[in-house]
Amino acid sequence: MADAGTLADLTDPITAPPALHDPTWRGFSSDNASGVHPEVLAAVAAANGGHVTAYGDDPYTARLQDVVRRQFGAQAQAFPVFNGTGANVVSLQAVTHRWQSVVCARTAHITVDECAAPEKVGGLKLLTVFAPDGKLTPELVDLEAFGLDDVHRAQPRVVSITQSTELGTVYTPAELRALADHVHSRGLVLHLDGARLSNAAASLGCELREITTDAGVDVLSYGATKNGAIGGEAVVVLNPDAVVSTDAAAYLRKSSMQLASKMRFVSAQIVALLEGDLWRRSASHANAMAARLAAAVRDVPGLEITQPVQANAVFAVLPPQVTARLQQRAYFYTWNQATGEVRWMTTFDTTEADIDAFAAMVREEMARG
Amino acid sequence: MADAGTLADLTDPITAPPALHDPTWRGFSSDNASGVHPEVLAAVAAANGGHVTAYGDDPYTARLQDVVRRQFGAQAQAFPVFNGTGANVVSLQAVTHRWQSVVCARTAHITVDECAAPEKVGGLKLLTVFAPDGKLTPELVDLEAFGLDDVHRAQPRVVSITQSTELGTVYTPAELRALADHVHSRGLVLHLDGARLSNAAASLGCELREITTDAGVDVLSYGATKNGAIGGEAVVVLNPDAVVSTDAAAYLRKSSMQLASKMRFVSAQIVALLEGDLWRRSASHANAMAARLAAAVRDVPGLEITQPVQANAVFAVLPPQVTARLQQRAYFYTWNQATGEVRWMTTFDTTEADIDAFAAMVREEMARG
Amino acid sequence: MADAGTLADLTDPITAPPALHDPTWRGFSSDNASGVHPEVLAAVAAANGGHVTAYGDDPYTARLQDVVRRQFGAQAQAFPVFNGTGANVVSLQAVTHRWQSVVCARTAHITVDECAAPEKVGGLKLLTVFAPDGKLTPELVDLEAFGLDDVHRAQPRVVSITQSTELGTVYTPAELRALADHVHSRGLVLHLDGARLSNAAASLGCELREITTDAGVDVLSYGATKNGAIGGEAVVVLNPDAVVSTDAAAYLRKSSMQLASKMRFVSAQIVALLEGDLWRRSASHANAMAARLAAAVRDVPGLEITQPVQANAVFAVLPPQVTARLQQRAYFYTWNQATGEVRWMTTFDTTEADIDAFAAMVREEMARG
Amino acid sequence: MADAGTLADLTDPITAPPALHDPTWRGFSSDNASGVHPEVLAAVAAANGGHVTAYGDDPYTARLQDVVRRQFGAQAQAFPVFNGTGANVVSLQAVTHRWQSVVCARTAHITVDECAAPEKVGGLKLLTVFAPDGKLTPELVDLEAFGLDDVHRAQPRVVSITQSTELGTVYTPAELRALADHVHSRGLVLHLDGARLSNAAASLGCELREITTDAGVDVLSYGATKNGAIGGEAVVVLNPDAVVSTDAAAYLRKSSMQLASKMRFVSAQIVALLEGDLWRRSASHANAMAARLAAAVRDVPGLEITQPVQANAVFAVLPPQVTARLQQRAYFYTWNQATGEVRWMTTFDTTEADIDAFAAMVREEMARG
Repeated sequence: MADAGTLADLTDPITAPPALHDPTWRGFSSDNASGVHPEVLAAVAAANGGHVTAYGDDPYTARLQDVVRRQFGAQAQAFPVFNGTGANVVSLQAVTHRWQSVVCARTAHITVDECAAPEKVGGLKLLTVFAPDGKLTPELVDLEAFGLDDVHRAQPRVVSITQSTELGTVYTPAELRALADHVHSRGLVLHLDGARLSNAAASLGCELREITTDAGVDVLSYGATKNGAIGGEAVVVLNPDAVVSTDAAAYLRKSSMQLASKMRFVSAQIVALLEGDLWRRSASHANAMAARLAAAVRDVPGLEITQPVQANAVFAVLPPQVTARLQQRAYFYTWNQATGEVRWMTTFDTTEADIDAFAAMVREEMARG
Repeated sequence: MADAGTLADLTDPITAPPALHDPTWRGFSSDNASGVHPEVLAAVAAANGGHVTAYGDDPYTARLQDVVRRQFGAQAQAFPVFNGTGANVVSLQAVTHRWQSVVCARTAHITVDECAAPEKVGGLKLLTVFAPDGKLTPELVDLEAFGLDDVHRAQPRVVSITQSTELGTVYTPAELRALADHVHSRGLVLHLDGARLSNAAASLGCELREITTDAGVDVLSYGATKNGAIGGEAVVVLNPDAVVSTDAAAYLRKSSMQLASKMRFVSAQIVALLEGDLWRRSASHANAMAARLAAAVRDVPGLEITQPVQANAVFAVLPPQVTARLQQRAYFYTWNQATGEVRWMTTFDTTEADIDAFAAMVREEMARG
Repeated sequence: MADAGTLADLTDPITAPPALHDPTWRGFSSDNASGVHPEVLAAVAAANGGHVTAYGDDPYTARLQDVVRRQFGAQAQAFPVFNGTGANVVSLQAVTHRWQSVVCARTAHITVDECAAPEKVGGLKLLTVFAPDGKLTPELVDLEAFGLDDVHRAQPRVVSITQSTELGTVYTPAELRALADHVHSRGLVLHLDGARLSNAAASLGCELREITTDAGVDVLSYGATKNGAIGGEAVVVLNPDAVVSTDAAAYLRKSSMQLASKMRFVSAQIVALLEGDLWRRSASHANAMAARLAAAVRDVPGLEITQPVQANAVFAVLPPQVTARLQQRAYFYTWNQATGEVRWMTTFDTTEADIDAFAAMVREEMARG
Repeated sequence: MADAGTLADLTDPITAPPALHDPTWRGFSSDNASGVHPEVLAAVAAANGGHVTAYGDDPYTARLQDVVRRQFGAQAQAFPVFNGTGANVVSLQAVTHRWQSVVCARTAHITVDECAAPEKVGGLKLLTVFAPDGKLTPELVDLEAFGLDDVHRAQPRVVSITQSTELGTVYTPAELRALADHVHSRGLVLHLDGARLSNAAASLGCELREITTDAGVDVLSYGATKNGAIGGEAVVVLNPDAVVSTDAAAYLRKSSMQLASKMRFVSAQIVALLEGDLWRRSASHANAMAARLAAAVRDVPGLEITQPVQANAVFAVLPPQVTARLQQRAYFYTWNQATGEVRWMTTFDTTEADIDAFAAMVREEMARG
């Protein structure tokens, strides 16, 4: 309908409310602690105004499909959702019948940090294997991918991996390919939790499709939130033959409560990240900050970096009293109470000065013993 | 951590991407077709920058609790979620044991439009009753609130109503009070799906608490999205004695995949609506536009308005060929194929000119017969 | 292993424990109130002794498959389960994806008497239609079998009917055929809850397959318990193309907790009923007793028989004070408190004398007013 | 109703059908391979005839409550169910809210052999720990009983153990007491999967209550099937304060599809086992047969018995070619393909001659190498 009038309050100048937080303060607790990249916010604003069809039949979601096909191949289809747990649980349901199960690492987000959403929403059993660096291998998969045809065993159907992993490590394309080949040879499919997929691609200096579609991944949870969005992820079906029915993801997104009514705003965020190189700029920066931190503290006596620093996380073991003092000066989480391991996350807005100041603190507190 | 440096790309001037849609075009299909109110978007921008704790331990969510207590009473506690289905299914689970069920109208969103999310995620049986105007009464409740102590019957525990209803009608405070008293006398609790709660309060000229807490509602799905947000709703526990455990809503929000990592942005939107009178300004405007439309077409011969126009919806029966021609000129949905009933929704950004132009179209097409 | 020794206590003469109930007492409350037909118990005893493979790979379950193919056609495959709810919920899951739903009558056992097991175990939404005599028709199905391709609607996939119905009525083969044709033309499948399938076939004087396989039923809950078993039913897949995967029923039976370890005993019971004519003898007798009762009281002034008496149930409306006095003298249930409708069930062991004595009571109490 | 007539076919002499299996053949595959103890079958026959109220309001279920109170204490309440998976999943749901989880051994039946029924039916996450002999300890429990108050973690609420374990080992009363005290000190409750509870008590020479109620167990899956029943188990609530609601078990049994209509026959079986000493006679015999087997082969060179033989199972490692030849002569399962470990189960009807013949085979085949 042509516009023949305007609401007064929509054209009035907007007085932004005051911030309730200190926008100059940053910590190392999580990439979720950061806000929105200004380019993403600008894209949301640009998508505003007027009416578009709700629930995904809009130009921004159409553009997203173009962008996704360009990034992930001609068969890729994206289903924007609200959050990473939603992306994972919809993805896993889309490739499983009601009686099938999931093989994953014991450290996988789906088993550790989702309050049993896969079990509750999907009735999915997670068959976990211990993977010291968070990465599955064909051998580790085989520890749980057995019992096919045994009616007493929830049937392994999908192997779920995380890239970059929850431990800040990264699968190479060759590792992924070997894993995918093995998974497929067992008659299973491969899901990739890509909450930090951009960090992995930036770390490897490769395109997103090299570590997803081209490596044999069947279905992807694409992560935008940790990469600088307000909030939004997408289930991306890379291999249409992997899902139980062509319409599986569409219906499961709705019945799993992950269908946004004003979807244009979720799609616009992902387009902003994926259409140009914003995804890579933001991820590369975050990775560089983690590398800078690791380099700055690696030689501190008594401090042990416990995982390869391949993305935007540094894991280290410190004496507990040092950790306690550091946590009074900076914000980060203890990862493992038993071992004293801590996790330091960097983000798109971490600065070199943040890193240098924090590294100095670490040295200082380690020196105090 | 004090800021000692800044990322170049975060301070560069942002070039907003071009809009992919016509921001001057509006229709009558849904309040979800509209975008974001500029004040809400400004509030999101104001909440940006720096780091805050993820998952709700942030100043915007704290402020939201203040605002919610002011609006809904000292015991009210809000749990921001992503969407209305999420708010409803978390709310209903929070007040039910695993074997309990829900009484609702046959037209309720939870049973008609949520792709069985209550059944799938909560295992909840919905006991539906036919309510011609979408409103339950004590007598209608009793048609399904029986069989208490019968182990073969999923135990009725909660009555769920919608305000304003899916048919654009509004419960008065007295009607709600009578219903709540009856529900409580049966040992049940009252849930209110408030996807359009603001429209109801604006219609009644009352405060939000007069049609929720003060009327005896126990748990509320508060709706922000249709009221001008990007996306975001909240489970609001009004009566702490109604939930199965004090921590029920917190855990159910997470396990039902409705916990936002960057929650500050969801909370900031709701604060923007509820802290001042934006909620009422937007809802009143939408309601006024529906009233203007109804007034403009009510006397058109052959057109029947089928429900009282009490909020921001007009339901009408037209000849099918008229509907078909109108749908080529404007955007709206047929509600009931069998009867030819259509639904016209107005929103915060519908203009008087929109209404007048559309009403003229209706008259014109009706005259063509 | 050849037997080379025997446990003393297995060959000692068994002293049966005393009965705790009066084995000469019978009522009209339910076919579940009756015990086991002696021929079924003899079959269980005959299946005892020695070892057979657990969970169904035994000679009795193999024989059952033969018998089922004979009764239901060459493609039929039986999955013995514990009870009717189990048979229904496994059957319905076997033909639905996670987002699909079920159309049934408002009086269907699956929606009225299973404490939301379909919703809880299968996440299944039941789309109910009012059917005065408990029987669906193509027109009634269409009241809910709409919204295909609408992502907001749990997708109708299966129509579930009951034969004989919960109201004691019976579909003719022609009615079933017309219904199945319509269901299939809509792209749906037909499930039959056959808790009292034998009563229907006995009533119609037809073979079981004439009202199942030959009429177009795709999946069947075959009922043995009400027909004289200790306990046991079977999911019978009649049309292998209807299930979501060829192994669906096998895995769903296990994951839905319906797989008997000592399955030989469940299978032996069903074989006892189906191999010869025991199923028909027992059902015909029960039906005849209901007909005798209806005939005996139909002309009692003030008593109204409310449903056609086509199987083993009589529904009638009596004055409440008469019902109250009758319930002090005999055992039966009030079906509908609001209308005063009662249900009288007959079973394989109801005697003519039982009927005559009860009919006399009814006349007597009705005469007292 | 007094009996005034009898059906001809109920008084005719019954000709038992021929057995389809060799009742003199026995193997070592499972206690589920055995049939019914004659005393149990006699009890079922004694409960037959006439009508009793369905679904548990019958004299046999009432007697069961007496027997259970005698065996397990005055607060104990039994809910008969169909099978062990049903008993476990109903028990675990009865003590958990929708967001709570279960700590168990990695070898627990609930996680290994129930096709994800706990996850599917209850949405329950199982937090597994490696326990070499199948027995949990306080230290092992603490490996997973953490993260209380962390909304991202499905909240540990119940520790589930098996007695005797899946590996044929037995907790002493002191071990159970220490474990229960620790579990309770953490604010959790203790569930015991007693599929072979009788074997444990027989092994320990104690009463059932000494290893359940008196040791601090809160809820029990009591197993009758492996102890000589046709099929039947019971959820036994030992500590009424442990369940989420006093009516939890009753409703969950029905909604989890575990409520038998002709419950008298399930109850009668359990009464037959528990009222006198049949449970102990049968279990002691089975245990003695396992001990006899272990004693007979323990010194065979090259054969290693891998678990303490404390109940009715013997676990051993043999060379694979020996296992292969033995499996052509006798019936048993390989437990672990990777290690060559096999499992030999004995039952109430295993004879000394069975054992001696099989032990001779083992010696013979081991000697062939």
